[in-house]
Amino acid sequence: MTGTDGRARLGEMATPHGPVQTPAFMPVGTQGAVKAMLPRDLIEVGAEIILANTYHLYLRPGDERIARHGGLHRFIGWDRPILTDSGGYQAFSLGERRTIDERGITFQSHLDGSEHLLTPEKATDIQANLGSDIAMVLDECLGYPATRDEAAASMERTLRWEARCRRRFLELRDEGGEPASRPGGDHGALPRRGPEGVGGQAQFGIVQGGTHIDIRVASAQATVELGFEAYAVGGLSVGEPPSLMYETIGETTPFLPEDRPRYLMGAGTPVDLVEAVALGVDLFDCVMPTRNARNGQLFTSDGRLNIKNARYSDDPGPADPRCGCYTCRNFSRAYLRHLFVAGEIAAATLNTLHNLTFYLDTMKRIREAISFSSLDQLKEDYRRVFSRRPVNS
Amino acid sequence: MTGTDGRARLGEMATPHGPVQTPAFMPVGTQGAVKAMLPRDLIEVGAEIILANTYHLYLRPGDERIARHGGLHRFIGWDRPILTDSGGYQAFSLGERRTIDERGITFQSHLDGSEHLLTPEKATDIQANLGSDIAMVLDECLGYPATRDEAAASMERTLRWEARCRRRFLELRDEGGEPASRPGGDHGALPRRGPEGVGGQAQFGIVQGGTHIDIRVASAQATVELGFEAYAVGGLSVGEPPSLMYETIGETTPFLPEDRPRYLMGAGTPVDLVEAVALGVDLFDCVMPTRNARNGQLFTSDGRLNIKNARYSDDPGPADPRCGCYTCRNFSRAYLRHLFVAGEIAAATLNTLHNLTFYLDTMKRIREAISFSSLDQLKEDYRRVFSRRPVNS
Repeated sequence: MTGTDGRARLGEMATPHGPVQTPAFMPVGTQGAVKAMLPRDLIEVGAEIILANTYHLYLRPGDERIARHGGLHRFIGWDRPILTDSGGYQAFSLGERRTIDERGITFQSHLDGSEHLLTPEKATDIQANLGSDIAMVLDECLGYPATRDEAAASMERTLRWEARCRRRFLELRDEGGEPASRPGGDHGALPRRGPEGVGGQAQFGIVQGGTHIDIRVASAQATVELGFEAYAVGGLSVGEPPSLMYETIGETTPFLPEDRPRYLMGAGTPVDLVEAVALGVDLFDCVMPTRNARNGQLFTSDGRLNIKNARYSDDPGPADPRCGCYTCRNFSRAYLRHLFVAGEIAAATLNTLHNLTFYLDTMKRIREAISFSSLDQLKEDYRRVFSRRPVNS
Repeated sequence: MTGTDGRARLGEMATPHGPVQTPAFMPVGTQGAVKAMLPRDLIEVGAEIILANTYHLYLRPGDERIARHGGLHRFIGWDRPILTDSGGYQAFSLGERRTIDERGITFQSHLDGSEHLLTPEKATDIQANLGSDIAMVLDECLGYPATRDEAAASMERTLRWEARCRRRFLELRDEGGEPASRPGGDHGALPRRGPEGVGGQAQFGIVQGGTHIDIRVASAQATVELGFEAYAVGGLSVGEPPSLMYETIGETTPFLPEDRPRYLMGAGTPVDLVEAVALGVDLFDCVMPTRNARNGQLFTSDGRLNIKNARYSDDPGPADPRCGCYTCRNFSRAYLRHLFVAGEIAAATLNTLHNLTFYLDTMKRIREAISFSSLDQLKEDYRRVFSRRPVNS
């Protein structure tokens, strides 16, 4: 950590592919590409780390193929850090196409119906093949709402799966293959790339427990006891009210080590980012900026803007006058609306460039606010701007 | 003209938005965007001029809206030259949704079924509103095959429409509005942007006549008699054998002024480009590089390559080892195949970047070959490479 503001933390997370300034947002590259972006676009918008989905890459093109290709970074042409999820969330989301038991998650591929068993060991192996900088443990994803008993049972299973993931991870490390992780030191000291140029993968544990605080606390304590390079808060942003999400985060982060990054999985809105940072969170991922961009919803310093609205047909101004992205520097709302209505691919590209710029700029503002101890003010600003209904919907 | 090699010509075409090195290829930006490209991508691949479609822009977002926005260049964020077609070809292609009579083409919008009458005057007005550097006359597009009588009647109607287009164009110019064209001088001396910073649009006539040589010759002579800034050969690349297309071009270009650019509309394959240049053509447009890219077909120095083929699943090499584009510098065939199979937008972007680079590089090779009097050799090379079947289809 290099600075704090209340519970918010400023830091640098070291990875085999370089440092990440935290708090950080990770654009989501589900199938090995952030939708509508090229790697150079991601660098331009300021992304220092991206997330890739194990479920998708395991099914297609296959983790072993990617390993033969030298790992995910080389395969997708991205030499900055990558975090991979465990595949659990996607498999869980298949609904009737999956069953869960103590072994793991049995699911049918959404691509060809083929049956697969995703165990904690398998999730660890796949991520080792992908060669991501940060691997996640396989957890059971609980829906909302869930009863105490459901939350407790699910959390217990996640703990057992986490232990199996860690065991497998350490076995692989000891074998000298990938991942060749070394326990980190300070926050910001995840293992660096070894002299051999491979390995160095870190593994994050995941806290579960729904919105039941005591179960969350027990999960956090037991997960930390297992000993991971860092820790995530999972199972939030799944339909619960934002206030309940914030409360759960706030009651959980005190039980996570101060010197390790904390990752809130799958969140969130711009307000979520600021609120969660104020509660001690350092890492985020969310499809919202990219998915909403493709649906024509832009995030701006005046709130959300639906570019498909007819009111923009003749609007010569940029999407966000206070934004310096390529889209806002060069194109009018009228043109962006035209591209969207016409179904042009450039609509997805330009909108995504803008939304990711807004998200990454938000993280930069957050980091600056922490360093100036003005995060409260930023939080109020974001709350005010984004409490408005979209001006045109 | 700055050089020749046989009948091939090297030149520079001046426009209100700067010069174009000829022979030149124009990527097609149907709806005000070259599909999957941003303006910066087009500059990167070396495009000096693009084509936009009057039919599409007239219907959506509307030429008057674009005029209010300061013209097409400003609207789409492209400050290099733009050529607009007349809308005739698209309207003609609507089949049962259009009827043609002496007035013009009556058609139903493919968007909402609304009825429109595209007259020669209207096509000229729309292009004036768009403010393109080069406007095309409205011509009647003849299918292939067509009888002598059909071809003669259609050519005669095109001539009458061309005369009406020219009259309207000169009226607009005399009114001092856009287009404010001035008759050009040498080839390469299309009117330059006036001190007022507007206007300067040029208008190209179009030679028709199917594949009936004497009708083509009559069309060329009569069109030149009408007096345009330059001339196009239309109605080819519509299903006739390549040899017949080349023959028709070769019999037509001698009747077009040597000091004006000659534009072969809607062609073609890489071989078509080289063959037609050798017959005295200077300008081309075609959707092939962009459309084929989106369908997974890449043009390479070894011929065509279908990236979706399973044989590329593990291929670590670039699409074209002799290409220096962003795609070939950074990504493997295996990754390009993965993106295509996964339906990622990046597949369209990367494939289009490559194919347009190949086309624009081809034009550069052509210009170099003319300057070194080695176009025959280049023609043989392209014939040989592209006579192969795609290695994988």
